[in-house]
Amino acid sequence: MTTFDRYKSTQQLKRLAERPFDLTEPGNLTPERLNRFSAESCGYKLLYGTERVTEEAMSELVALSREAEALSKLERMQSGEVMNSIQGYPSENRSVLHTAARDFFDHPNSAKAAQEAARLARGQVDKLEKFIQQIDAEGRFTHLVMIGIGGSDLGPRAHYLALQNLQKSGREVRFICNVDPDDAAAALHGLNLSKTLILVISKTGSTLETTTNEALARDRFVQAKLDPSQHFISVSQPGSPLDDPKKYLACFHIWDWIGGRYSTTSMVGGVLMAFAFGFEVYWEFLRGANAMDKAALNPDVRQNLSLLAALLGIWNRNFLHHPTLAIIPYSQALVRYPAHIQQLDMESDGKRIDKQGNAVAFDTGPIIWGEAGTNAQHSFYQLIHQGTTVVPLELIGFKESQRQQDLMWEGTTSQQKLLANLIAQSLALATGQTDANPNKVFPGNRPTHILLAKRLTPFTLGGLLAFYEHKVAFQGFIWNINSFDQEGVQLGKMLANKIIGRFLTKNEPQNSSGTSYPLGDAILEQLESL
Amino acid sequence: MTTFDRYKSTQQLKRLAERPFDLTEPGNLTPERLNRFSAESCGYKLLYGTERVTEEAMSELVALSREAEALSKLERMQSGEVMNSIQGYPSENRSVLHTAARDFFDHPNSAKAAQEAARLARGQVDKLEKFIQQIDAEGRFTHLVMIGIGGSDLGPRAHYLALQNLQKSGREVRFICNVDPDDAAAALHGLNLSKTLILVISKTGSTLETTTNEALARDRFVQAKLDPSQHFISVSQPGSPLDDPKKYLACFHIWDWIGGRYSTTSMVGGVLMAFAFGFEVYWEFLRGANAMDKAALNPDVRQNLSLLAALLGIWNRNFLHHPTLAIIPYSQALVRYPAHIQQLDMESDGKRIDKQGNAVAFDTGPIIWGEAGTNAQHSFYQLIHQGTTVVPLELIGFKESQRQQDLMWEGTTSQQKLLANLIAQSLALATGQTDANPNKVFPGNRPTHILLAKRLTPFTLGGLLAFYEHKVAFQGFIWNINSFDQEGVQLGKMLANKIIGRFLTKNEPQNSSGTSYPLGDAILEQLESL
Repeated sequence: MTTFDRYKSTQQLKRLAERPFDLTEPGNLTPERLNRFSAESCGYKLLYGTERVTEEAMSELVALSREAEALSKLERMQSGEVMNSIQGYPSENRSVLHTAARDFFDHPNSAKAAQEAARLARGQVDKLEKFIQQIDAEGRFTHLVMIGIGGSDLGPRAHYLALQNLQKSGREVRFICNVDPDDAAAALHGLNLSKTLILVISKTGSTLETTTNEALARDRFVQAKLDPSQHFISVSQPGSPLDDPKKYLACFHIWDWIGGRYSTTSMVGGVLMAFAFGFEVYWEFLRGANAMDKAALNPDVRQNLSLLAALLGIWNRNFLHHPTLAIIPYSQALVRYPAHIQQLDMESDGKRIDKQGNAVAFDTGPIIWGEAGTNAQHSFYQLIHQGTTVVPLELIGFKESQRQQDLMWEGTTSQQKLLANLIAQSLALATGQTDANPNKVFPGNRPTHILLAKRLTPFTLGGLLAFYEHKVAFQGFIWNINSFDQEGVQLGKMLANKIIGRFLTKNEPQNSSGTSYPLGDAILEQLESL
Repeated sequence: MTTFDRYKSTQQLKRLAERPFDLTEPGNLTPERLNRFSAESCGYKLLYGTERVTEEAMSELVALSREAEALSKLERMQSGEVMNSIQGYPSENRSVLHTAARDFFDHPNSAKAAQEAARLARGQVDKLEKFIQQIDAEGRFTHLVMIGIGGSDLGPRAHYLALQNLQKSGREVRFICNVDPDDAAAALHGLNLSKTLILVISKTGSTLETTTNEALARDRFVQAKLDPSQHFISVSQPGSPLDDPKKYLACFHIWDWIGGRYSTTSMVGGVLMAFAFGFEVYWEFLRGANAMDKAALNPDVRQNLSLLAALLGIWNRNFLHHPTLAIIPYSQALVRYPAHIQQLDMESDGKRIDKQGNAVAFDTGPIIWGEAGTNAQHSFYQLIHQGTTVVPLELIGFKESQRQQDLMWEGTTSQQKLLANLIAQSLALATGQTDANPNKVFPGNRPTHILLAKRLTPFTLGGLLAFYEHKVAFQGFIWNINSFDQEGVQLGKMLANKIIGRFLTKNEPQNSSGTSYPLGDAILEQLESL
C-alpha cells in the first residue's frame, strides 16, 4: 500500500463517497449552500456549492491535505528544496523554483536558494526591460516569430492570446512549433523578414522540433541575404548551444530549476509579452502570479483557492472516479488556456509511480480537456448533460469584458448573456430534470465549480496561471508523486530517432547506420505504397 | 436489457475482452501482423495492428456489425428513411441526408427522397458557383467574416484551416462564434468594412449567439454608414428570419434533413470554401466526401474504413472500458480537426437512452479530445505513456506536406521527422519497455491505430470528413441510439434564458418579467460583489 492509500482521511473519504451529496434532491442545493461553499483570494472567487461535497467531506479533504503535508511541501518547494526526485533511483534531483521567477514584490521568500534564484531571474527581467527599450527606440522590428514547442509554446501562446487586446499597434506575433514543415511555411508566409525578430526557445537547445525549425528559418534569412545573427534571439540554459552571442542578437537565460510547463513567467513567456504588450504588462502579470504564490500558502484551507481546487479534483478523481476534467473558460481570450492547463496538469501528474518508486494503486492526474464557452455548449455539452460518462467541469468567468465593445440587444449585453450561460450550465448540470419523455430527462448530479474575477487583466491572468500551477503541485504532493519530471516522453523519442535513422539510410544509403527496425519498416512500407 | 446487450457477439466480445491481445509479449507484434491488420479505401490506409484485437475478436466485431445491421442502417440513412427519431415518444422524426448534399457524382442514390434532396442541394451549389463568379468579377469583397456557432463554426473553421495553403491571394477570412463580446470585437478589429462580406449561418435563424453577433456586426456597418443589406449574406432553412432578400445580398439554404454537425459539405461550409479557395476546391472536396459515402457501404467490413474504425472504437469503449479517445493528426493543417470531431462524435453519440427510449446499461460515445502531433507529444503524452488511465489514440498522417517547403536537415526532411514520430509513438505505446528504474518502465498495451494518406488535398479532406461522419453514425447504429438529435442542450438554454431575464430586470426594472430564480440570483450576487 502506498502513502495515499494509508491516510485515515482517505479511508473516511472512501466511505463518504458511497453517498455523495445529492444535488438533485429538492431542497439540497440552496442559495445558502452556494454562499457557504465559496472562497475568495487575489481577486478571484471560487464557488463550489455545485460539487457533490458535504461539510463532512470538506472536513476530511482538509484533513487529507494535512496528513499529506500539502502546504508544507509547497512551502519547501518555494524555498528551493529538491522536490523533483524519486528516492532510491536515479532522477533529475532538482529544485522547483518557478515561483522565484516572480518573487520580486512584497514578502519575498527568505530561504537562501529561493533568494539566489530570484536574484538570477531578476537579472534577466532587467536585461529584458533594457532590450525592449532598445528595440522600441530603434523601431527595427515589427514582427516576432516564436519557435518553441510544449512548455516553450503552449503557455506563452495561451497567455499571448489572453492579452491580445493590449497588443501595441504595429506589432505582430506568430508561432512555429510543429516539426510539420507546413507549420513553418504558413508562419513565414508573406513576412517581411527584414523587420522580423525570431525568438528561439529550448531549455537544452537540443529539442528536435525547435532545432529543425530554427534551421529552416535561418535558411530563409540567408536566402533573403539577411544576417540571422541580427534577427535571432534565444532563451535557454546558460551554456546551451542557443547561449551564443555570436549567433544571436540577445541570449536570455532560464535554469534547470524552472520546468518547461512551469516556465511562462520566466523569459520563456516574458520576451514575447514584453515585445507584444510592453514591459509593464509583463511586470503586472508577474505581480499577479506572485500574489497567488503567497496566497497558495494560506493555512486556512477553506480560503486557499489552489488547495481547495486540488482537493475537489481529488474528490472527483479518486473517490467519485471521474476519469477526466473539462476546463471551460467563458472568455474567448482564454480560448487556448485549456491547452496550456492540459500540458501543465497531464505532464505533471500523469504518473504511475510514487516518490519512492512504487507503482501506485490509485488514479493520478485526470485527462484534462476543454474549449471556451459558450462555444463548448454547442459542441460537446450534449454528452456532458446526457452521456454515460460524467465529466466534472471547471468554469471560469469574468464580470466585465476586456475590450468593452458591447451592444445592448433585446435588453441585455452580450457579456450578460455570456455570464447567464455560465451560471445556467452549472445549475442545470447539478439539478438535472425529470420528464415523462425519457429523452428530456437530465440525471443531474454532474459536478462543477466556478472561478470568477472582475476582469481578465495582466494581474488576474498572472493569478490564474499560479492558481493552476499550485493546484497541480498540490495534487502531486497529496498523491506523493513527482509532478516535476517527464520520463514518459523518452521511449517515443528514442524510437522516433530509430525511424529517423531508417529515413536517413533511405536518403543517404552510403551513410547507413546499419540499425534495423522491422516493425518501423513495416509501417514505412505501407506509407511508401500510398 | 437493451438491444446492444442482447447480441450474441456482445457476449462473445465480453469473454474475449478478459484476455485482450497482448502487444507487449515478445513475438506478438510482428511486421506480418502490421500488414495483415490493414485496410485501404479512397486513398486512405487504416493500420490497426497496434490495437488489442485478435483475429477472433475481429470476427466477432464483424458479427456485431451484422447483428446490429449497421450497413443496412447506413444504406437506409443515405436513402432518406427517417433515422432521427425515438420510437413511442415525441422526437424530431427527420431524415438524415447530409450525404445527399454531395451525391452529384457516380452512382447516385436511387431512392426518391435522396434524389429529391440531392436536387435541392445541387440547386444551392449551382447558385453558389454563380455568386462566387459574380463577386470575383466585381472584386468588391476581399474579406469574409463568418458568424455561426457549433456546427456552423467548428466544421467550416477546421476545414478552412485544413486547406489554407490554397487560399486565393488577397482574400482573408475571420470568424465570430462566441457570445463573449470580445470575440466579435477582436474579429472586427482593423477591418475595412467596405470590402467585407458578413456570412451569417443559423439553421433556424434563432441561435442566441449568432443573432446577437449579427446585431453587433450590423450596428458596426450602420455606424460606418454602410448598408448591411449589401454586405450580409446568410445560410439557413427556407422561411427562417435569415431567409430574407431584403436584408441579405444572398440567402443560401439548408434543410432540416442536414444536422448542424453534419453540415460542412452543405452551404454551411461551402460558401466560405468557395470564397477563400475558389469554387473548384469546394467541388473537389464534395467529390472526396461522396467517394467515402459510397465506400462506407462496402459489405466487405474488413475493407470498410468507417465501419472498421467504429468497431475498434466499440471494442475499446465497451469491452476494454476506455472512457476517452484522443485524435492526433500529425499535420498542422488539421490543428482544429479534433475540435470538429469532438462535436461531431460527442453531440451525436453522447446519449443515455436507446431508440426505444430505454435507459442504456452500457457506455455510449466516449470523450473525444486531442491536439496536433508532434505538439501533443510535448504536452500530454507523459500521461498517455505512463498515466493510470489508458487513452486509445487515433493517429492521422500524410506522406507529403501540403506546401512542399521543406528543408533537409541532418540528413532528413521535416516531413520525414514528423512521420517518424507518428510511427514511433504507435509502436512505443504498444510494446512499452521494462527497466530496473521504475520511472523508466512503460506498461505498453496502449492501443492506437493509424490513418494514412498521400497528401491532404480537397479530395482527401472530403474523404476524411465522411470517414468520421460514418464512423460516428455506425457506432450509434450499433448501440441502437439516435445519433442525430441533441435534446441534452435544452435544459441549459432554458435556465440561461431565466438568468438573462434576471439581467433584464436589473437593466430595465420597469420591464421586469416577475420570474424569480433564487439559485441564479445567489451566483449573480457573488458576481456583483467582485
